[in-house]
Amino acid sequence: MVGGGPGAFIGPVHKMAAELDGRIELVAGAFSQSPERSKAAAASYRIHPERAYASYQEMMAVEQTRPDSIDFVAIVTPNSLHLPVAEAALKAGFPVMSDKPATATYAEALALEKLVKDAGLPYGLTHTYAGYALVREAREICASGRLGKIRKVAVEYLQGWLSQPIETTGQKQAAWRSDPALNGPGGCIGDIGVHAFHLLEYVTGLQVTAMNASLLTVVEGRQLDDDCTAILRLNNGAGGSLLASQVAAGEGNGLRLRVYGELGSLDWRQEDPNRLRVKWLDRPEEIRHAAGSYLSAGARAVTRLPGGHPEGFIEAFAVLYREFADALTAWKSGNVHPVPETLPGILAAVRGMRFIDRAIESSQRKSWVEF
Amino acid sequence: MVGGGPGAFIGPVHKMAAELDGRIELVAGAFSQSPERSKAAAASYRIHPERAYASYQEMMAVEQTRPDSIDFVAIVTPNSLHLPVAEAALKAGFPVMSDKPATATYAEALALEKLVKDAGLPYGLTHTYAGYALVREAREICASGRLGKIRKVAVEYLQGWLSQPIETTGQKQAAWRSDPALNGPGGCIGDIGVHAFHLLEYVTGLQVTAMNASLLTVVEGRQLDDDCTAILRLNNGAGGSLLASQVAAGEGNGLRLRVYGELGSLDWRQEDPNRLRVKWLDRPEEIRHAAGSYLSAGARAVTRLPGGHPEGFIEAFAVLYREFADALTAWKSGNVHPVPETLPGILAAVRGMRFIDRAIESSQRKSWVEF
Amino acid sequence: MVGGGPGAFIGPVHKMAAELDGRIELVAGAFSQSPERSKAAAASYRIHPERAYASYQEMMAVEQTRPDSIDFVAIVTPNSLHLPVAEAALKAGFPVMSDKPATATYAEALALEKLVKDAGLPYGLTHTYAGYALVREAREICASGRLGKIRKVAVEYLQGWLSQPIETTGQKQAAWRSDPALNGPGGCIGDIGVHAFHLLEYVTGLQVTAMNASLLTVVEGRQLDDDCTAILRLNNGAGGSLLASQVAAGEGNGLRLRVYGELGSLDWRQEDPNRLRVKWLDRPEEIRHAAGSYLSAGARAVTRLPGGHPEGFIEAFAVLYREFADALTAWKSGNVHPVPETLPGILAAVRGMRFIDRAIESSQRKSWVEF
Amino acid sequence: MVGGGPGAFIGPVHKMAAELDGRIELVAGAFSQSPERSKAAAASYRIHPERAYASYQEMMAVEQTRPDSIDFVAIVTPNSLHLPVAEAALKAGFPVMSDKPATATYAEALALEKLVKDAGLPYGLTHTYAGYALVREAREICASGRLGKIRKVAVEYLQGWLSQPIETTGQKQAAWRSDPALNGPGGCIGDIGVHAFHLLEYVTGLQVTAMNASLLTVVEGRQLDDDCTAILRLNNGAGGSLLASQVAAGEGNGLRLRVYGELGSLDWRQEDPNRLRVKWLDRPEEIRHAAGSYLSAGARAVTRLPGGHPEGFIEAFAVLYREFADALTAWKSGNVHPVPETLPGILAAVRGMRFIDRAIESSQRKSWVEF
Repeated sequence: MVGGGPGAFIGPVHKMAAELDGRIELVAGAFSQSPERSKAAAASYRIHPERAYASYQEMMAVEQTRPDSIDFVAIVTPNSLHLPVAEAALKAGFPVMSDKPATATYAEALALEKLVKDAGLPYGLTHTYAGYALVREAREICASGRLGKIRKVAVEYLQGWLSQPIETTGQKQAAWRSDPALNGPGGCIGDIGVHAFHLLEYVTGLQVTAMNASLLTVVEGRQLDDDCTAILRLNNGAGGSLLASQVAAGEGNGLRLRVYGELGSLDWRQEDPNRLRVKWLDRPEEIRHAAGSYLSAGARAVTRLPGGHPEGFIEAFAVLYREFADALTAWKSGNVHPVPETLPGILAAVRGMRFIDRAIESSQRKSWVEF
Repeated sequence: MVGGGPGAFIGPVHKMAAELDGRIELVAGAFSQSPERSKAAAASYRIHPERAYASYQEMMAVEQTRPDSIDFVAIVTPNSLHLPVAEAALKAGFPVMSDKPATATYAEALALEKLVKDAGLPYGLTHTYAGYALVREAREICASGRLGKIRKVAVEYLQGWLSQPIETTGQKQAAWRSDPALNGPGGCIGDIGVHAFHLLEYVTGLQVTAMNASLLTVVEGRQLDDDCTAILRLNNGAGGSLLASQVAAGEGNGLRLRVYGELGSLDWRQEDPNRLRVKWLDRPEEIRHAAGSYLSAGARAVTRLPGGHPEGFIEAFAVLYREFADALTAWKSGNVHPVPETLPGILAAVRGMRFIDRAIESSQRKSWVEF
Repeated sequence: MVGGGPGAFIGPVHKMAAELDGRIELVAGAFSQSPERSKAAAASYRIHPERAYASYQEMMAVEQTRPDSIDFVAIVTPNSLHLPVAEAALKAGFPVMSDKPATATYAEALALEKLVKDAGLPYGLTHTYAGYALVREAREICASGRLGKIRKVAVEYLQGWLSQPIETTGQKQAAWRSDPALNGPGGCIGDIGVHAFHLLEYVTGLQVTAMNASLLTVVEGRQLDDDCTAILRLNNGAGGSLLASQVAAGEGNGLRLRVYGELGSLDWRQEDPNRLRVKWLDRPEEIRHAAGSYLSAGARAVTRLPGGHPEGFIEAFAVLYREFADALTAWKSGNVHPVPETLPGILAAVRGMRFIDRAIESSQRKSWVEF
Repeated sequence: MVGGGPGAFIGPVHKMAAELDGRIELVAGAFSQSPERSKAAAASYRIHPERAYASYQEMMAVEQTRPDSIDFVAIVTPNSLHLPVAEAALKAGFPVMSDKPATATYAEALALEKLVKDAGLPYGLTHTYAGYALVREAREICASGRLGKIRKVAVEYLQGWLSQPIETTGQKQAAWRSDPALNGPGGCIGDIGVHAFHLLEYVTGLQVTAMNASLLTVVEGRQLDDDCTAILRLNNGAGGSLLASQVAAGEGNGLRLRVYGELGSLDWRQEDPNRLRVKWLDRPEEIRHAAGSYLSAGARAVTRLPGGHPEGFIEAFAVLYREFADALTAWKSGNVHPVPETLPGILAAVRGMRFIDRAIESSQRKSWVEF
């Protein structure tokens, strides 16, 4: 693992998620650029100190030579390091599982795409929400055509944790996300807007073709946007909206997707992830529950517990790592397209960075932009 | 009452709402342009047939001369008649309670404004949702400053009943709403978008100053828009979004308003009208219930039942009629500003028509417009 | 109307409900035993003062002689007067619509049953909750057999308004309900337990045959029970539970019925009355919405508004009055069984009083009792 | 681990939960009485085959001699083996983490209590629901006295998975639970009733002193009860009710606890575990969210993720294992009372078995029983 040092939120989540299904074990890491902090993190992860590296370059170099070498690299650093670390890993022959957004800029994403293609190695992107069983169910319902032609999509991702300028008070998560040098040019749009965008395309199977976005910096003195509203046009002619905010005071992690078709609609909420609401023109509303015997095979495949036993964020995350483990196995056995199509990969990486890029341009030009 | 003939939805609602609190009685009407249908409606309303008129002109003329004359006129016709009927009523000396939108066009709204001012008579507009107790509570919370400066507003009004082209099958409600000559130029935006807009301004006390709207006609062959997405800017600098749709398959009457301030936020949903959710940065979420002893005086004043006994759409509607009855009383006693500020009136009428006008222009020009 | 004087909660509700559908008008009443208070109430109801009587006896005597006589009598007094007023009305030839519970004691209920039979007049009992559209739907689903054999019923009715001894502070509603002489021997069990019991039998079409009840008086000094828990056995062998409390601090009017069959189950909550949840063994949960095109004819018949427009307590109450108006019409035209079976009548009256009687005996004997 | 062979549900859950926080690793097991099946399970758990034992006796004997011996034994067998395995483990010097109910009978629980005391070793019982953050919050609210004296408790645990006689079709979970020889005498009451009972005592800090229970066997031919309704009396005089069913068709894992005090009440639902509803007499209802900054220290200590990121059943389970790991550490360092009081232990074990015993007796005698 690269990143995930003391104070990080997402490092421990990656570890718990990666290990949950017993397929993967965290054994080495460059957790921090400070050797002491990297060793401290290794201790907290119960990793042998000799595999706590002070730089990702060192980790790649040393691990390549070990008989019990790592099998892949998980990238959980601030965004500006995503590309260099991925490049080093791929060039050292290690597959990559990266946190999102894939890179800091769209240009970097195109570079990454080339690196991944050239390396021929598995690449996964942790759009966590794609791992929820009911998101898989929603995706299968859209693909099945049961809703009829999709006409309208409404996705929102509302958080409140940046309502105050906490990046000025030493909160580590807020600090790097508010620093363009570490984060890239998209603030809220890059941190969570991209999740909303991915979810929309992942579930519907459609692509955004045009957008009119308004990015605001609500908290005074903040260097990046913390609120976004966008009108979307999809490649089948449907319309849509995307709201993302980190200054929606009182909200926790309010990701919600609604998809409206000719005959019915879907509604999924991350804060109530084990239920999927499906409404119809002339039938009762349905609530589909995780582990329901009536769910699609793809949805049932990613639940671990009987109905009524809630699975959450870590379990969804672990689904992506499980599928990445499948990809590693397939790759080792010589499969040319090893990454399961349910696991977000390099295509999602490029789409997401394109989205951030287009949103910023649309907002600056105050006009519609094409994708 | 003018309008509300056989097949109408809103006529009987006006009657039930007007009479609920025992202050008003429906005694006469020009329910239809067909004398037979007008008499049939009168019978269904249990009104004496001699007061079932075949035209509003006749009603005004005859009622003016009766000793037991009507006290005011309720307008529940298709939009294109709102102005002519209001004009006739005001000129005959009758106060007016009108369904929304106030007129068919913005130009007509300005004409109406002048008529109301010149007549010096009470004018009310049935933005029903303003009559709910928890909407009143939300309004008072915004006014109190407890949320801090308002930063973001998200309003949506999603219905699914026009998902199919039912206007071509004789459904009366759909037919006139899809006919520009009867309805005016705003379809969904004029029918329900204007409710969402009003609710936003009513609750926050702010005004929209700029908008970027996208109006779509989703159902093929339909003459007017049936879906709208808009990005808003408010007069205190806050941003906002407005979604309205009548092709959101599976939705009933999904009006919802969220208001985000520096310190907390509000969330009210018309389909669950007796609860108001208030979230805070560092305190538990609150649910305020209708008839709670802790509600503001303004909210308590408009509930009729103890806590836990649901009040609904008719009761909210009746609140507006009750306040209109208060306005009539005040006016008769010579009060110069008789209309309570909680009752939507001519200002709301003009704002709403301005909104429709601006939305259409923005959508046509594909750009931001000022108000 | 008899009862409903100043300070009453249920009097104005009866009036609003009776008049909502335009079939009934409140024209006379013995609203209070004090002539002044009766006249004051009449004024608030906008009734001619000459028809504000100071006693029900006077009302019956005078109204019998008027050409524009009342058509029936609504009884909204404390329980101890239900029988004497009903008796006077029936003997004077007036049909009766009575608030619940039907009488103060079971013995009185038997007497009332005889009076109703002898008089051959329509008798209705305002178990309000039977008027909700989704309760009708639930009843039809049970009758249809779609749930399979019913195995288990869980009904609860939780309120918190008597958590403090407010009967000692002049709160009129609490005062008479806590006085055995005015209320009869069943406190919470008689005030709301009987509603829960009725709902259970009304929806399932089954009958309770045995019960083990525990009645508690939680608030010190209170003369009657304020909390009840009971285990039930039904006539098809099913088990059940009934909870009722008026000291459930924080609850409003929490009536909820769940019915479990071999194949699925129902769940209806009075505080969210426009939805009915239906769960199945191997299918998605359903939410049935008021006014859904898929509802049974009986459910659709008692909605007034399109989907998504909430109807509430007053509207449900009005359904009972509408059906009572139908009963009056049928009776006047000579129909021998005029009361629609959907309207609770004398059978429900006797069952309810039997329930209260059995609950008290079971609790006193600390053992199971048969019905 | 003893138990958890192929087809088991709870074995893999124990492993995921035990390992989630990186404190514990599953390294050995007697997963099945069949050597082949035990080895197959070991392979699925990625455990070295030499530590896959064919009997718990063999495991204790061998592991005692290994330098890298196991640190404790987790018992996940059918109930009838809980005592013998615990006895063997304790006698071999291994602390015990046991699934519930603690034993097959109350007499066995008393024997176990003596064994634990004599051994002086940590003993934990996986009443999973005690591991949820909001259950901890509820417990602290009760202890704080903020609700006033507790007056009423309503706990329910409703499942539907045994609605059909699936024990006759080879479903392994259902088969042993329906066999008195493997399960003990309490069916539904022993499988989930005991969870409900524990949650009630755990959260309120009160004890049940008397009970009137009705146990039913709803599915024909089933050997044990599958449905239970009980009226409770607590040691502070409060009343209560407990519903448990495994034939509540359509329910998943519906554990819910409501606690009513003089001033307010709590409501927690396992299927929505990250929220706790708190209602008050004269204040708005509150929803407390997992990871809220306002939660008690005890509740905050057991969340791993920021607000809005759902944690579920595995995470709650892992809290108990984490506290058991703390207990092991404390015990190894010579602490005499090593088990944290938040972790259910031998006292809960005895209480739970007493409850099952009393419920069966009450139901058989059709009368109240004392504890």
